[in-house]
Amino acid sequence: MIGIKSIASYVPSAGVDNYAQGARFGKDENFILGKIGSAFLPRKADTQETSDLCVEAANALFGAHPELQRGHIDALIVVTQNGDEEGLPHTAAIVQHKLGLGTHVAAFDVSLGCSGYVYGLYAIKGFMEAAGLKNGLLITADPYSKIVDPQDRNTTMLFGDAATATWMGEGPLWQLGKAKFGTDGAGAEHLKVTNGSFFMNGRQVFNFALVKVPAHLNELLEDAGLTTAEVDAFCIHQGSAAIVDAVARRFEEGASAHKFVKDMLETGNTVSSSVPLLLEKHLNDPKWKRVAISGFGVGLSWGSALIERA
Amino acid sequence: MIGIKSIASYVPSAGVDNYAQGARFGKDENFILGKIGSAFLPRKADTQETSDLCVEAANALFGAHPELQRGHIDALIVVTQNGDEEGLPHTAAIVQHKLGLGTHVAAFDVSLGCSGYVYGLYAIKGFMEAAGLKNGLLITADPYSKIVDPQDRNTTMLFGDAATATWMGEGPLWQLGKAKFGTDGAGAEHLKVTNGSFFMNGRQVFNFALVKVPAHLNELLEDAGLTTAEVDAFCIHQGSAAIVDAVARRFEEGASAHKFVKDMLETGNTVSSSVPLLLEKHLNDPKWKRVAISGFGVGLSWGSALIERA
Repeated sequence: MIGIKSIASYVPSAGVDNYAQGARFGKDENFILGKIGSAFLPRKADTQETSDLCVEAANALFGAHPELQRGHIDALIVVTQNGDEEGLPHTAAIVQHKLGLGTHVAAFDVSLGCSGYVYGLYAIKGFMEAAGLKNGLLITADPYSKIVDPQDRNTTMLFGDAATATWMGEGPLWQLGKAKFGTDGAGAEHLKVTNGSFFMNGRQVFNFALVKVPAHLNELLEDAGLTTAEVDAFCIHQGSAAIVDAVARRFEEGASAHKFVKDMLETGNTVSSSVPLLLEKHLNDPKWKRVAISGFGVGLSWGSALIERA
Repeated sequence: MIGIKSIASYVPSAGVDNYAQGARFGKDENFILGKIGSAFLPRKADTQETSDLCVEAANALFGAHPELQRGHIDALIVVTQNGDEEGLPHTAAIVQHKLGLGTHVAAFDVSLGCSGYVYGLYAIKGFMEAAGLKNGLLITADPYSKIVDPQDRNTTMLFGDAATATWMGEGPLWQLGKAKFGTDGAGAEHLKVTNGSFFMNGRQVFNFALVKVPAHLNELLEDAGLTTAEVDAFCIHQGSAAIVDAVARRFEEGASAHKFVKDMLETGNTVSSSVPLLLEKHLNDPKWKRVAISGFGVGLSWGSALIERA
């Protein structure tokens, strides 16, 4: 069974002081820390393309695992909605070349936002099993600095640039368990790029997440025949401190709020990279045996899953 | 095992007389018929978005299968590099809403061009099996009329707009067999959109396909332990009459050229829709028990697979 063997990441060291940025909009430190949740927002250099962020994350993975050679990779999925080019070619092809992978690699992009890592895990596992492939890279990289208007107070304090690379293969550290997904295109207008500029209806997205995510996590546990006591941690998309706190309070009336990880102080909302950034830190933590993950956002789209230490 | 249950399509009835268009560039009927292969190029209306083409193809599928209700669909992949919006949201979310599917649908876009259907089959089968889903729609829709410059003689005579919808589920008509894939981002520049306009280096792409595809089909058969005699038809991407003819002549020195289907007279090169348009016509043809399919193009990317009547 294909599962998660390792996770690595790339977070640019340059970026924006979010306290200073908040001050420009009349927001104090309590707001930045308590509502936004991020004191610093990493930003890629202007010269860095989306594929370059992917390459940095993948190279960190190769660096940590000398046993994984580039020639071993036979599957590559890049989750992004802000790729290098205008629609075509796909970013995964550019990454294949920049990484020096073999030409026998099956590579494509999956277009999803903040729900993308959860979908991506099942897409790459399933694709690899259906096609008989052995070593896959699931890469997330969605640099919103390409589309966020620095003058838009609704979005410019939220998003950070980052990329992650997950090695998928046999003999994994973590197995994928039960998963559930959802889509509601009626809310597509709430997160959208028009003429190169990103628009988000923050109130609508907040309400959507607050209604949808706790209920979805409940359904997931029920489908899996598990109680909350049997889940060691909840790693949900780090949209903002406010949304993570609100979901944690709403889920089972806050009884398990302490299990909801909140860790975005130095990253911001990194879109599809937020969940793997959390998992990366606890990949070898023996206290975590079963983790619920959930991503939600643009589409609208959401996905929740259970992963279990193998 | 999830496989192909049915295929439907949408080909706009409006379009371009390719003989008249050829005459504008000093090309005669022999060229249009013999090299290009398409006398007519279907074109979507300006008012039709990519999602509308998807909806037309899916509605044709629902119309042909009253036993398949919209509420049964739990997976939806749209293969496109020319979606409705600028990167986000993904077109699959818009299609979920326009089709009136349930919000329990797992939906995302796969970004691939002419190789997209072969990849998409294994992506949706694998995703459905990994996530425990039952009824999926694999939709292809990549209307190049959005990006092709009518003054570009290298591309405007080639491409047609179309969409297809493939119903994936248990108890299929066709099972997916062995598959092989490949990617070479070193050739990404040969098919690319810049400032909204599509560029293709036709000679490079032709040479790539002529070198890669016959060899790839050979490797596929070898991996599957099959001889060409055991394959009833070869449905390769209908890039142009010239490329289909050249691949057929090159593969095993033309010994099986008669098994290569060429059928693009009224459609043109429909990108990821070309292979399913061929399969749709022969889905219930008892003479076809095993078919090799192959797609190749933007990326550069290629994929070949064997499908077998269940």
